[in-house]
Amino acid sequence: MRPVFFLSDFGLEDPYVGVVKAVLWARAPGVPVLDLAHGLPPQDLRRAAYALFEALPYLPEGAVVLAVVDPGVGTSRRAIAALGRRFYVGPDNGLFTLAWLLDPPMRAHEIAFISPPRPAGILPPPGWAPGGHTFHGRDLFAPAAAHLALGLPLEGLGPQLPPEGLRRLPLSLSQGPEGEVLTFDRFGNAITTLLRAPVGGWVEVGGRRVAIRHTFGEVGMGEAVAYLGSAGLLEVAVNRGSARETLGLEEGMPVRLL
Amino acid sequence: MRPVFFLSDFGLEDPYVGVVKAVLWARAPGVPVLDLAHGLPPQDLRRAAYALFEALPYLPEGAVVLAVVDPGVGTSRRAIAALGRRFYVGPDNGLFTLAWLLDPPMRAHEIAFISPPRPAGILPPPGWAPGGHTFHGRDLFAPAAAHLALGLPLEGLGPQLPPEGLRRLPLSLSQGPEGEVLTFDRFGNAITTLLRAPVGGWVEVGGRRVAIRHTFGEVGMGEAVAYLGSAGLLEVAVNRGSARETLGLEEGMPVRLL
Amino acid sequence: MRPVFFLSDFGLEDPYVGVVKAVLWARAPGVPVLDLAHGLPPQDLRRAAYALFEALPYLPEGAVVLAVVDPGVGTSRRAIAALGRRFYVGPDNGLFTLAWLLDPPMRAHEIAFISPPRPAGILPPPGWAPGGHTFHGRDLFAPAAAHLALGLPLEGLGPQLPPEGLRRLPLSLSQGPEGEVLTFDRFGNAITTLLRAPVGGWVEVGGRRVAIRHTFGEVGMGEAVAYLGSAGLLEVAVNRGSARETLGLEEGMPVRLL
Repeated sequence: MRPVFFLSDFGLEDPYVGVVKAVLWARAPGVPVLDLAHGLPPQDLRRAAYALFEALPYLPEGAVVLAVVDPGVGTSRRAIAALGRRFYVGPDNGLFTLAWLLDPPMRAHEIAFISPPRPAGILPPPGWAPGGHTFHGRDLFAPAAAHLALGLPLEGLGPQLPPEGLRRLPLSLSQGPEGEVLTFDRFGNAITTLLRAPVGGWVEVGGRRVAIRHTFGEVGMGEAVAYLGSAGLLEVAVNRGSARETLGLEEGMPVRLL
Repeated sequence: MRPVFFLSDFGLEDPYVGVVKAVLWARAPGVPVLDLAHGLPPQDLRRAAYALFEALPYLPEGAVVLAVVDPGVGTSRRAIAALGRRFYVGPDNGLFTLAWLLDPPMRAHEIAFISPPRPAGILPPPGWAPGGHTFHGRDLFAPAAAHLALGLPLEGLGPQLPPEGLRRLPLSLSQGPEGEVLTFDRFGNAITTLLRAPVGGWVEVGGRRVAIRHTFGEVGMGEAVAYLGSAGLLEVAVNRGSARETLGLEEGMPVRLL
Repeated sequence: MRPVFFLSDFGLEDPYVGVVKAVLWARAPGVPVLDLAHGLPPQDLRRAAYALFEALPYLPEGAVVLAVVDPGVGTSRRAIAALGRRFYVGPDNGLFTLAWLLDPPMRAHEIAFISPPRPAGILPPPGWAPGGHTFHGRDLFAPAAAHLALGLPLEGLGPQLPPEGLRRLPLSLSQGPEGEVLTFDRFGNAITTLLRAPVGGWVEVGGRRVAIRHTFGEVGMGEAVAYLGSAGLLEVAVNRGSARETLGLEEGMPVRLL
């Protein structure tokens, strides 16, 4: 069976991650489910797109990537499954934008034919209508991921879509010199869209010039520094501090290699 | 082997979840353990009962539900294992109240005969007495869950108990018109005990009338709204805000369909 | 395959835990990975050492313990694998100090021969250099743990090291009367280095005398109490409060049985 790598903003305070795993298990008993991250900032698509970019190069080919960060749940955004060298299941909201730079989808299908899980082995209270309209992770994406984990065909999920019509966030990675602040990590380090960090050079961001070094440990406490992060993108940090707060950085701010 | 679905308020800052899994693995090597949630608010039985209710319809029949939210650990509350269409292992403190509305226990046993795990393969410091008296998740519930995951008989765990004598929280679900605030989710949305949310109608809670809609997205930012949540219960929310704080709601407050 | 028990301070807000699991899976498909804890306070070696001590007696012999709390990443600290009655993989920074009191390493090797995972099945943007220099969990420790999980020989990882030369934190456990505050748990309870808690006696810490009882429940709300914790160490708590804050305790403070 294909392993399912599962990423969401569900947190661990509610049983949503567990319910999705229960549905995966019920549909594909024994399926290996590996958590990528569930504590992502709620509904933050750029952060989620970056997390998938960070993880992607290390995910085995043929794996199923199940990602649910879905501010538009309940609206008309589509539910999709796509195939590059891995399978992708989630909302069609741009979540996979950066991952697909590395592994572009060759085929895509809308998730439309899949049957939602029917509660079983329970005694419903009279008039009870479990489900509601708002939990696509459980009702659409988990059954679709289980379907693919079992090796069943992509076209069984719904009508085919042109891969180039899938939604992307307006983000691109570049060698510079111009880029932007992509997102922040949990320490307040700024991740940029620049693929290079020439050591000894400088980067300008938020009206400041920041020196580029090999690692953040090369400057004193409280000082700003830029370096090539573990995902291969230029990052701007403050040693033992938050670059976001100290330097007043925001998403989308221009970044420029000098 | 039966899968074990594990819910607790242990958090991920301490290794308690991991220790329970180690004991499960040592007793039943290869047992599938699926996390339901471990970041539940500490010792909040109503919230835990609701989390189990949300998850239950999707848990496979025959699965072992291991739940440890246990404010009374160290007191004389019993440790129990019960069997409906799934197995239930945990403290006899009402934790399963709502889950058992859906899957009532037909048999129950006290956990009394089970031998706690003995540390093995270690060199104890002289005079060391690991264990103490306070970690039933490790010493009672995990061994009992492993026992059941292996397919061993329920009666091997301890003396039989009448299922109707198991503790329940004073909670019931109803079609209305009267109900109460059951608990809150991590966004501050109020979950109620009402099984219906007639769209177009109104609900009264905390001295306010709140309109019932299909989803919380149908009102403006900061406005209150009620809708049928993903567990099939009426919820009261404030769009992009906390209903708990904005409306001053508390657990147990009466809720009334108008 | 040997199970891998994985502990880190990576949190669940970033995909680092997931990336490590992806590398484990890619190298050792089907390997059982059990999370010990990932929400440990960042870079807190004493807390991580205590977490490993708590868990260790319950980890099966022959298991692989993968632990990554690594304030010195990027410096010249060594990456190591050691063998007691379990395998240990992580930075040589003292992380295993307390675990090794229970299960001392008989052999140790530096992790030097292992090849880091090469991103596969991706289309690199021109000039992209994933990796950087800072993610040893992904590039060294996960491949080494996978190697051991597969049953491959320890000496395949790198040159042998004398086990007595591995780094230890300056910590020891004792029967008393003198000890120190080892660390704090998430509730602010102080964990001490004392292996005994004679009920009815007293312990002095931070200029206060605290009564030793069976459990923290034996004193009133807001009162200080000491007892033998679930790991077999004397703990100092404030019932329904934080001993750390209420009593002004700090790591390393002397503790004395009276």
